[in-house]
Amino acid sequence: MKRYERLANQITELIERGDLPPGARIPSVRAACRAWGVSAATVFRAYYLLENRGLIKALPRSGYFVSATAKELPAQKSRASCSAGTKAVNISELVFDVLRTTKRAETIALGSAFMSPTLFPMARVGKSCATVNRSMDLATMVAGLPPGHEGLRQQISLRYLMAGMTVPVDEIIITSGALEALTLSVQLLTDPGDVIVIEKPTFYAALQAIQRLGLNVVEIPVDPVTGHDLEALARALQHHPVRACWFMTSFHNPTGVTLDDSRKQALVDLLASHDVPLIEDDVYSELHFGAAPTRPAKFFDRKGLVIHCGSFAKCLAPGYRVGWAAGGRFAGALEREKWMTTLSASVPAQRAIADYLEHGGYDRFLHKLRRELARQQSQMLDAIGRYFPANTRATRADGGYFTWVELPHYIDSVRLFQAALDSGISVAPGPIFSADGAFRQYVRLNYGYQWSPQLDKAVATLGALCADESRCGAKLAGPVRAP
Amino acid sequence: MKRYERLANQITELIERGDLPPGARIPSVRAACRAWGVSAATVFRAYYLLENRGLIKALPRSGYFVSATAKELPAQKSRASCSAGTKAVNISELVFDVLRTTKRAETIALGSAFMSPTLFPMARVGKSCATVNRSMDLATMVAGLPPGHEGLRQQISLRYLMAGMTVPVDEIIITSGALEALTLSVQLLTDPGDVIVIEKPTFYAALQAIQRLGLNVVEIPVDPVTGHDLEALARALQHHPVRACWFMTSFHNPTGVTLDDSRKQALVDLLASHDVPLIEDDVYSELHFGAAPTRPAKFFDRKGLVIHCGSFAKCLAPGYRVGWAAGGRFAGALEREKWMTTLSASVPAQRAIADYLEHGGYDRFLHKLRRELARQQSQMLDAIGRYFPANTRATRADGGYFTWVELPHYIDSVRLFQAALDSGISVAPGPIFSADGAFRQYVRLNYGYQWSPQLDKAVATLGALCADESRCGAKLAGPVRAP
Repeated sequence: MKRYERLANQITELIERGDLPPGARIPSVRAACRAWGVSAATVFRAYYLLENRGLIKALPRSGYFVSATAKELPAQKSRASCSAGTKAVNISELVFDVLRTTKRAETIALGSAFMSPTLFPMARVGKSCATVNRSMDLATMVAGLPPGHEGLRQQISLRYLMAGMTVPVDEIIITSGALEALTLSVQLLTDPGDVIVIEKPTFYAALQAIQRLGLNVVEIPVDPVTGHDLEALARALQHHPVRACWFMTSFHNPTGVTLDDSRKQALVDLLASHDVPLIEDDVYSELHFGAAPTRPAKFFDRKGLVIHCGSFAKCLAPGYRVGWAAGGRFAGALEREKWMTTLSASVPAQRAIADYLEHGGYDRFLHKLRRELARQQSQMLDAIGRYFPANTRATRADGGYFTWVELPHYIDSVRLFQAALDSGISVAPGPIFSADGAFRQYVRLNYGYQWSPQLDKAVATLGALCADESRCGAKLAGPVRAP
Repeated sequence: MKRYERLANQITELIERGDLPPGARIPSVRAACRAWGVSAATVFRAYYLLENRGLIKALPRSGYFVSATAKELPAQKSRASCSAGTKAVNISELVFDVLRTTKRAETIALGSAFMSPTLFPMARVGKSCATVNRSMDLATMVAGLPPGHEGLRQQISLRYLMAGMTVPVDEIIITSGALEALTLSVQLLTDPGDVIVIEKPTFYAALQAIQRLGLNVVEIPVDPVTGHDLEALARALQHHPVRACWFMTSFHNPTGVTLDDSRKQALVDLLASHDVPLIEDDVYSELHFGAAPTRPAKFFDRKGLVIHCGSFAKCLAPGYRVGWAAGGRFAGALEREKWMTTLSASVPAQRAIADYLEHGGYDRFLHKLRRELARQQSQMLDAIGRYFPANTRATRADGGYFTWVELPHYIDSVRLFQAALDSGISVAPGPIFSADGAFRQYVRLNYGYQWSPQLDKAVATLGALCADESRCGAKLAGPVRAP
């Protein structure tokens, strides 16, 4: 085979696989010559062959592009559907099934962890991004290195101040979202085989991190109304060499519950008496419905034992992936962990958020957002009351955008997840929130969407699916078992 | 103490600590009322007190700001200087000492891992960033979720094509720089206690990742001229249950050496015969001095065992933190690992790079950059020849911007690092590149800076420091020992 034919065949393969979609630009002849070390003639011949095959076309003064008619885009790969019935479901698979629904634009995402992007001031943040990133000099580039952009860290320190706390700029490490702050903290504080305390139910990423790091866990029950069981925690601390505790003390995911101040104080005191660090996930802190911010456990910390992890992903700019850890006595060590895993958070994103915080009207936006979320909460809970079986119980949180719904005992939430997805609706089934696949009669629903007839209809559909389940579900198939 | 006094004192503390620097904006009265749940009168009184203390001032129609005269900015914290002599040096500390020099703008950064930011097309990438990020809709936001921005992944696939390789878009996962691609890969492929093969000398982040994950290592010597010792690798594979291999086969950091094609083929075949995955760090691949790109080991992979990790951080836009893994048969699993650790890479950065790759003239830029780096290499090697002791040996790589310098045996590179820093020059001392603090007579020097009289003088200074060492170093103090 001639050289130009080989080249043409390689490109053909990419086009046929859809990697080069219709309209995509093909390298210029000059670039191609340089890249392959071939003559312009070889490239021309290859491109000519591709043109004859109808795969690319040359546009005068523009270059070569994949033809619109080259190939129908391959159909979206169909999700491996879990058939209902007795098939064993791998919990970890289930997490990814739920996560992937986030990318399906056509799904009504009641199972999503994000609120509606229409609620974010994306245009204003985009304006900040465009304004500050038009150029970048040496100082700016290195300024993004750990612990992170100085101006952004100052703004975060200021926000702590506004919530009544003094957190020095030095203590703040910018991360790629709160998730990285959390995982870096766990990595830092534990060695394989160590014991860590987590919640039950818990944020699924905690489970994954623990599995990855080879840790042993003690799970502390979280009551949807009263919160974390501190007596269980006291027992755990007495009987196990606990190295760290990973809790969400405000607007807990998935239950929505918030520990009251006296219990937060008790939690911090209890951990301090055993010298155990608290990794506090507080990503919904800005979304409080009350007039004053909810205090984090960090507020009560006197020993520097609380690593407070926050983010702008849930309340301002999800795609930017800018979060932080206020590391207490571990700040220096966390900074090193950051150097060694992903280096700095993206500098353009850090600069954009810093600029927005200073000039964008963040507080005005949050004020409005909180009212909207509170209204949407009422609308969601009303709809659940109208459409779900009588003995359904849904939590009413003081902030955030989740309600944790306890369904009648005969309903299996994994089967509901699958059935709902067939109707174009996602829910977050209870079993993704624990290591042992518990909470099969729970779902987490997201009310971070502006209320609409479609949303009302989606909740009605879920209610109807629950009713179906009550009529025939138990007869048709036993509950799906987690491994 | 009255409420307004407490509030004023909190803010005073932040100003005195420098957390709120001169000129920083203080929350508006309205925002402060809302945040603290206090009356406007309380805030006014607190701010009035602060004004009287001369700490803040009100600007009509603008708000409150920290006064320019409030406080001299606290002096930059002085780096804990390692005194020369017999003091034990912790190698890990040494890594951070070296890394932190990156943030010292006044230092001539021959020890840096980045080339000069003036060589990057930062204005053009900034333009892309500004243009594409002015707005962001739902589709864009979720499009950044793993595996990452589709258009960016297509552009990366296209670049593989231009290097003569077919890598499907599906195989490419966008990460926060190559460092995350590497650490995710190791996390994925190993459990605590497993054996992994690394290089000696090696990129220090590999050592950190291994320590963090509780792995055991077999180190394979890398010769500065011939590269990796494949016979040692064969023995390691025979005698140990190796789970993965982390190598840099082109423009190796720190030596600069590149395995030739036949040895890359042999490496891939050898690993394949043991079914051991290769994590290939190839961040300098675009910086080849020859006409054609250097082929990565990935090129020879037929079993999907090579995870090829690349980045735009070393050749286009350092602060953006956009890298990727071409995951072979592990692509799906890597995507999950990404979901669970930092979620997506920053969307504005992904979009900016994708736009630049399509419209910014990347190949033209690279073409120029490669020529400049090759010229700077000659200038650096000439200068080393002129100024360093006669029996110094420096590698001449086929790409990248590092030379690995073997100094006469009586010179201790850690002491040279410290002495050079006192003269405003950083070098990367050999011991940061191995677990046992070996390579004490080596330094890595960076020639990714446009040649200048200052640079020439810096190399002359280093040469003079080496000469000093030869005259009296050995007499004054024995070599500093690594722990």
